[in-house]
Amino acid sequence: MNPDFLLDSALARSLYHTFAAGLPVIDYHNHLKPADLVSDRKYDNITQLWISADPYKHRAMRILGVEERRITGDADDYEKFEAWYESLPRLIGNPLFDWSRMELSRVMGVELLPFGDCKTVWDRLNEAVRETSAKKLLETFNVEYSAPCTALCDDLTVFAHDDTLAPSLRGDDLLLPTKALLERLGSLTGITIRTPEDYLAAVEKRLDAFRAVGCRFSDHGLDNGFAYAVDDGRNASRFARLAAGEELDRAERLQLSSFILTQLASGYARHGFTMQIHIGAQRKTSTRLRTLAGAAGGYAAVGNTSDVSSLAAFLDAVESLPAGLPQVLLFPLNPADNAVMATLSGSFSRDGVEALVSQGPAWWWCDHYEGMVQMLSTFACHSVLSSFVGMTTDSRSLLSFVRHDYFRRVLCRWMAQMVESGRMPDDEGLLGDTIRRICYENAKKRLN
Amino acid sequence: MNPDFLLDSALARSLYHTFAAGLPVIDYHNHLKPADLVSDRKYDNITQLWISADPYKHRAMRILGVEERRITGDADDYEKFEAWYESLPRLIGNPLFDWSRMELSRVMGVELLPFGDCKTVWDRLNEAVRETSAKKLLETFNVEYSAPCTALCDDLTVFAHDDTLAPSLRGDDLLLPTKALLERLGSLTGITIRTPEDYLAAVEKRLDAFRAVGCRFSDHGLDNGFAYAVDDGRNASRFARLAAGEELDRAERLQLSSFILTQLASGYARHGFTMQIHIGAQRKTSTRLRTLAGAAGGYAAVGNTSDVSSLAAFLDAVESLPAGLPQVLLFPLNPADNAVMATLSGSFSRDGVEALVSQGPAWWWCDHYEGMVQMLSTFACHSVLSSFVGMTTDSRSLLSFVRHDYFRRVLCRWMAQMVESGRMPDDEGLLGDTIRRICYENAKKRLN
Amino acid sequence: MNPDFLLDSALARSLYHTFAAGLPVIDYHNHLKPADLVSDRKYDNITQLWISADPYKHRAMRILGVEERRITGDADDYEKFEAWYESLPRLIGNPLFDWSRMELSRVMGVELLPFGDCKTVWDRLNEAVRETSAKKLLETFNVEYSAPCTALCDDLTVFAHDDTLAPSLRGDDLLLPTKALLERLGSLTGITIRTPEDYLAAVEKRLDAFRAVGCRFSDHGLDNGFAYAVDDGRNASRFARLAAGEELDRAERLQLSSFILTQLASGYARHGFTMQIHIGAQRKTSTRLRTLAGAAGGYAAVGNTSDVSSLAAFLDAVESLPAGLPQVLLFPLNPADNAVMATLSGSFSRDGVEALVSQGPAWWWCDHYEGMVQMLSTFACHSVLSSFVGMTTDSRSLLSFVRHDYFRRVLCRWMAQMVESGRMPDDEGLLGDTIRRICYENAKKRLN
Repeated sequence: MNPDFLLDSALARSLYHTFAAGLPVIDYHNHLKPADLVSDRKYDNITQLWISADPYKHRAMRILGVEERRITGDADDYEKFEAWYESLPRLIGNPLFDWSRMELSRVMGVELLPFGDCKTVWDRLNEAVRETSAKKLLETFNVEYSAPCTALCDDLTVFAHDDTLAPSLRGDDLLLPTKALLERLGSLTGITIRTPEDYLAAVEKRLDAFRAVGCRFSDHGLDNGFAYAVDDGRNASRFARLAAGEELDRAERLQLSSFILTQLASGYARHGFTMQIHIGAQRKTSTRLRTLAGAAGGYAAVGNTSDVSSLAAFLDAVESLPAGLPQVLLFPLNPADNAVMATLSGSFSRDGVEALVSQGPAWWWCDHYEGMVQMLSTFACHSVLSSFVGMTTDSRSLLSFVRHDYFRRVLCRWMAQMVESGRMPDDEGLLGDTIRRICYENAKKRLN
Repeated sequence: MNPDFLLDSALARSLYHTFAAGLPVIDYHNHLKPADLVSDRKYDNITQLWISADPYKHRAMRILGVEERRITGDADDYEKFEAWYESLPRLIGNPLFDWSRMELSRVMGVELLPFGDCKTVWDRLNEAVRETSAKKLLETFNVEYSAPCTALCDDLTVFAHDDTLAPSLRGDDLLLPTKALLERLGSLTGITIRTPEDYLAAVEKRLDAFRAVGCRFSDHGLDNGFAYAVDDGRNASRFARLAAGEELDRAERLQLSSFILTQLASGYARHGFTMQIHIGAQRKTSTRLRTLAGAAGGYAAVGNTSDVSSLAAFLDAVESLPAGLPQVLLFPLNPADNAVMATLSGSFSRDGVEALVSQGPAWWWCDHYEGMVQMLSTFACHSVLSSFVGMTTDSRSLLSFVRHDYFRRVLCRWMAQMVESGRMPDDEGLLGDTIRRICYENAKKRLN
Repeated sequence: MNPDFLLDSALARSLYHTFAAGLPVIDYHNHLKPADLVSDRKYDNITQLWISADPYKHRAMRILGVEERRITGDADDYEKFEAWYESLPRLIGNPLFDWSRMELSRVMGVELLPFGDCKTVWDRLNEAVRETSAKKLLETFNVEYSAPCTALCDDLTVFAHDDTLAPSLRGDDLLLPTKALLERLGSLTGITIRTPEDYLAAVEKRLDAFRAVGCRFSDHGLDNGFAYAVDDGRNASRFARLAAGEELDRAERLQLSSFILTQLASGYARHGFTMQIHIGAQRKTSTRLRTLAGAAGGYAAVGNTSDVSSLAAFLDAVESLPAGLPQVLLFPLNPADNAVMATLSGSFSRDGVEALVSQGPAWWWCDHYEGMVQMLSTFACHSVLSSFVGMTTDSRSLLSFVRHDYFRRVLCRWMAQMVESGRMPDDEGLLGDTIRRICYENAKKRLN
C-alpha cells in the first residue's frame, strides 16, 4: 500500500512523516479483552483475527444480503472468510474498504488489491496470522497505553502488572444498580449498602482501586436520548426501594439515575478521571438481529440529536458540587450534533485545566474520513483544535489500531489543506506542535 | 452547453461517458400525468411545457417578489414566460439555473446563455416546442420505466398496454380511510368492508391488480413529524368507528394509522413492492399561498429532523410479521437526517436481499448538487454505496428527466474526486460496476 | 498581511478586488455602545480596544485553562494582554486567529506573525491605539450605517444627529413586559396602559419614534427553544394579570408572549422594519460563569434544532393580519437548521417584495469560514443567493468590522470555486451584480 495513502500534497506528506507517524499510540478507550492481551493470544486463522470480532464487517455483509449463517452463524471459518472477501469489492467508498487494505498491508504484509483467488489469499493470510500474537500486534502498532472497558466489580488483577494496560471504567450499570450488583459491590468493599451514601462510599472505594491500576478514564453511554432531572431531594427513598428489588417507574428512574450520574461525575473529578459521555445511540432496532447476533451485533443506529439543555443542566449541577467538574469528553453519535458539542466546550472552565469539557473524536459509525473531517473542522471553528484529545479506537478488534494511523493521515491532510487555503499559517513549528498535542500529548497529559 | 458540464477532471469525464451516459432511465417514482403520456400530449408553447407544471420555478419567482398573477394567476402565457425569463439571471447558484440550461439545451437545442431578447427567445423556443410531444420527450431521455403516483382506487387501464409505464402506489389516504374511500374500495373489490380484516383483504386485491400492471413501488409521505404507536389490540373498534364516519381524536388516529401502516407494509412485502417512505416535510406553512396556489404549490418547507426510535419501532414491528419487511427506501427531507437514515440501512437485513432497508436519492428541496453529494458521501460512509438505488425525479414536469443526467454527472464527478484523493481505488472495473449498479441495475432489479 | 488573504484563485482575487473590496459597510445589527461612537471614544491601551469587549476571546482563553482573573478579573491590562497574546499560538484553525491577524494588520498596521516578545508588541500596539478613536475606526472600515441594539424605552437623542447611526430595536423584554417597563412606557408615551390595546398603542408610538431616527431593523432572540401558541382569545385577562404584577404559569406565558410577538411583528410590518429572529441559543449553561462574567460573558452554547412548525405557524398568523408580514430574517444558531431556514424563504411571499422571509448571515458561534460557506451554499441551493442580505457583525467590539472584509473574501472565494466547477456561469456581469447586491445593495434597500 502506498506509504503516502491519503496524503495528497507535499505539505500533508511532510506533516505526517515528520510529526505524526512516529508518535506512540494512547488508546484510552476500547473494548478489547484484557485476557487476550495478557495471555498473548494467538489466532487459528485470519477469520478469528480479522472478521469474527468486528461487527462493522458483519453489518456491511448484512446490507449486501449475505446469509447470517456465513456472518455469525454455524458456517466454518473459511466460509466466513469467503463471505467477507467476496463482499469487499462491493465496499468501495466505505471506510471498511480502506481499513481492510490497511489491516492486511500493515499487519500481514499482504496487499488486498488486485483481488486474487479466495483460497490462495486465505492460505497466505493464515501463514501471516500464525506468526503474530496479541502482544506482537501491540508492538507493531507502537501502543503505549490501552484501556479496555471494565465494569466496577470486575477483577482488576489482570491490570496489576502491565503499565501499558489499564481499565476504562464502564459506568452504565451504576445508574440504576441491580440488587445483585449491590451485593457484589458490598462484598467487594466490605460496606453494607442500604442508602445512597453507602452506595457512593462503596463506589468511591472501587474508584480508588481503579486508579491504583492506572485507570484515568470512565465512560457512560447515554442511549436512546438523554434527559436530566434536577435532584428533588427524594432519591434516598427511591434508592431504598430499588435496593429492595422494587420496580421504579419511568419518572422515578430518571430522577434517581440523574442523581447518581451527578454523584459519579463528582467522584470522577475527585479521582482525576476523564469522564467520557457517549451520547446519541439508538440501540433498539431489530429484535430479530438482537436475538441472532447479540447486544453488540452491529445493527445499532444513530439516534436523534441530543438535548443540549439536559446536558448543560447536568454539567452545571456537577460543577456546583465541591469537587467541581471532572474533565469531560462528549462523543455525539449523530453528526448533526457536532457543532453543539464543540461549542459546549466553551461553556464550562476551570483555572489551569485545559479542555475541561471537550469533544471526543468522531465515534463509531462516524469514525471515518468524512466523520473525522467534519469533527475536526467543526471543532476547530467552535473550540480550540490544539486542545483536542485525539483518537481512540473504541473497538473490539486488535487490528483496529490501524485507525490511529488512518486518523493521523486524515489530520495531516486536512491541516495541509487549511494551510494551502490560507486558513492556517504556513509555520512548521505551530503545525507540528498542534499535531503532537492531538496525536499524543493531550491524551498523555490525562494519564497523570 | 458544454458536453462535459460538471465533469471537472479527466477521470470524471471518462467515468461519465464510458459508463453512465448511455444507460436507460428508470424513473421509479414521479408525479407525471399518465394521460399526458398515453395521449402523447403536445404543448401550445414553452410556458406550458417548461413553467406551468414546475412549482420549483414558481417558488423561486416568489422569493424574488414576482407578482403571483404572473406566476399562477391570470397573466397570459407570454407574460408568465417573461416573468420566469427575467428571473433567471438572478438565480445563479441555484439548481434551477443549471436545470434550466440543461432543459433548453438538451431538449430544445437552445442555449440559455448569453441571455437574449425575451420575445425572440420565446418565439424560438415555441418553434422547438411545436416539434415535440410527451412520447418524443421520453425517447429523448431514454426512459425505460416511468412510474407516476397513483391512488389505490384509481383506474389502472391506462397502464395496461404500455410496458414502460406503471403506477407507483400512493398510500397516504389509506392510513385513515374516509367513508367514501371505503365505499369505492368495497365496490371495486366486491368486499363489504366492516372490519380491519375486510379492509386489508380489499387492499390486498388492489395490490394484486397494481402488481399485474407493473407496479413495484409504493409510497407514503409521513409529514409534519412521524410518530409510531405499537398496536394495543384495540384498533378493530377504532376502525369500526372511523368506518361509521365518527371522528377519532389525535391519540386514536395515531394508534389506528400506525396499525394500518404496519399491515400495509406487510402487504407490500408479500407483493414484492419496494416501500418508499418520504419523511420530514412541513406541508403547513402559508395559508395564503395554499389558497392561491393549491396543495402542491411549491411553498412547503423542510420539517424537523425525524424521530429515529419511531422509525425503528415501525420497521421492527413489520419485520416481526410473517411476511417480514418489504424493501424499504427512506427519503429524509431534512439533510440533517442523512446520517441517521443511511445508518439505519445496517439495522435490518434479510438473507439474500441486498439493501433491504436503504436510503433513496436526495429528495425534493435537497435534489441538487449539494444535496446529492451530501447524500452520496454520507451513504458511502454509513452504508454500502454500490447498493444505492439511484435517481428518480419525483417531478410533475416531463423536462425534469434531465435530472437523471445531472445526477450521473454529479456521481461521476464525486467518484473521480474520491479516487484522486485516494479514497477509492483507481480501478475502472470496480468504478464502472458501481456506476452501472447505481444508475440502472439496482433499480432494474427491483422491477422483477 | 497578504492582501489576497483567503483568495486562492485568480478569479477569487478579481471578484474581490473589482467588486467587493470598495463597497461601503452597512452593519444593520450590532451591540456597540452608541455613546462610544458619538463621543468619539479613545482607548487607553490595546487591551481595552482589542480584548475587554470581546467575549469570543474570553471564551477561547477559558478553553485553554487561563485563570479567570487574567480574563475578566482584577489582573491589570498588561496581564490580560499577555494572557491573550500567549494564547494566540494555540488558536490556529480558529476564526479568532484569522480575525486577530486582520484586526492588527488592517487597523494597527502591525503583523501578528511571527510572534514577537510580548512586552515589545504591547508597546507597539499601544502606540497605534493612541492614534485612533471610535470615529476614526468607523472611517477606516468605510461604515455607512451602523445599528446598535436599543431597547424600546431607551433615550433616542443619541441617534438624532448622525445619519450613519440608528437604533436596531431589541424586542426581547416586550413579550412579557414587567410592571416597571409598562410604567416607563406609559410615561414616555402619555398612554395609561391597562389593556393589550393600550400596550400596543404605546409600542406603536415608540416604533414611530424609532423610525424617525433611522431605525429599520428590530430583533428578537428566541432562546432555549421556540414554541408558538395560536391565540385562544384569552390574552386580555392574562395581560391584565401580568400588568398587575401577578406571576403567570408556563403555559400562560407561552400564550401571552406568542400573542404579543405576533402583534409586534404586525407593527414592524406597518413601520417597514425588517424583523430579525435570532433562534437556537442555549443561554443557560454554567451558573458559575454567569456569576463571574455576566449575562453576555461568552459561555452560551448552541441549542437544539428549531421547531419548524412553530416558526411556520407564527409567520402564518402574522401574514393573516391586515398588515401582513414584515420582512423577516431568520438567524439559526444551530448549523443543522440551515437548510430548514433557507427553505422557509420559499414558503411566504408578497408581490413586489424580494426576500420577504429570508435567512441572515451565519451568526455568532457560526460566524466564520466554515459557517459562512455552509450558510452560503445551503442558501444558494434552497433559496435565491442574489437576494441574500449579507453580513452584519452583531458584535460588541469595534474591531469586529474586519469581519465584513473577511465575509467578502469568503464570498468571492466560494463564488470563484462555484464558477471553476461549472456551477455558476463565468460571466463577470452576473457575478459582479450578485456580489454587489449581497455586500451592499440588499441591505441598503432595507433602509429606505
